Amino acid sequence: MSVVPEFLSANERYAAAFRKGQLPMPPARKVAVLACMDARLDPARVLGLEEGDAHVIRNAGGRALDAIRSLVISQQLLGTREIVVIHHTDCGMLTFTDEQLRQRLREGLGQTTDREFLPFRDVDQSVRDDLAAIRGERLLLKDVPVTGFVYDVGTGRLRQVA
Amino acid sequence: MSVVPEFLSANERYAAAFRKGQLPMPPARKVAVLACMDARLDPARVLGLEEGDAHVIRNAGGRALDAIRSLVISQQLLGTREIVVIHHTDCGMLTFTDEQLRQRLREGLGQTTDREFLPFRDVDQSVRDDLAAIRGERLLLKDVPVTGFVYDVGTGRLRQVA
Repeated sequence: MSVVPEFLSANERYAAAFRKGQLPMPPARKVAVLACMDARLDPARVLGLEEGDAHVIRNAGGRALDAIRSLVISQQLLGTREIVVIHHTDCGMLTFTDEQLRQRLREGLGQTTDREFLPFRDVDQSVRDDLAAIRGERLLLKDVPVTGFVYDVGTGRLRQVA
Repeated sequence: MSVVPEFLSANERYAAAFRKGQLPMPPARKVAVLACMDARLDPARVLGLEEGDAHVIRNAGGRALDAIRSLVISQQLLGTREIVVIHHTDCGMLTFTDEQLRQRLREGLGQTTDREFLPFRDVDQSVRDDLAAIRGERLLLKDVPVTGFVYDVGTGRLRQVA
């Protein structure tokens, strides 16, 4: 059973009420948010974002390494001048090691890989590591504020880490 | 002026009304959505997603290449069994070439790079290209539905491409 019919029904309702057709391409609040893909974290609701406000970049863990391309485009072509990083409690990235995931791929799919999946053991440290990676990236602007948070999936609350 | 104080105020309101503290880590609807980071596209509102429903992976363009790590983790560790790709009209990725962006980085930051930024010239084709990349990726499951859409930022409506 695919989710596509349900997604299309929900989209019909959204489109029927849609009144935001003339928004400009550059984010109004000039910020790029980098957050984990976790299903329990909805950055727009958590941060009070409306359509048009902010770039939202998401991947497993909210890691900087996968996001550099997007952040460069966000700054150079669409004028964002701030970065906010959000990792969260109870993250799946805390539950495995590269070697465990590689073993699962070998056993389940018969595929070997040396790909790095970027798990971590401490969510405060992973935020600090990703802020450092962003601040050290030579293709990103040096003079933009970069702030890091941990989101608590049990309370809905953000805690600033750095 | 940082957006952080506004984000924290909005988060206070969200947390005060928060009643979703016991959701499980695996996405309830067993789907991973890959979408562009564009500020005008809110995948949760467009698709009717609630907290806990789906992984949402986002990057510049909604390109597959940056998303493989996240999709592998989504499938292998968190049990998703469907992928939905969403690109959109009026995308920033339609407005530049790699060479133009590299030149801007040289002139603005004094940095040279051969990084590929994955722009495209046709949004229907970019969806088809990314579905093909996902279907051809040896570390992803072969038997999951993969569906592609173009979102119209002028109407709020999804159009299925493949």
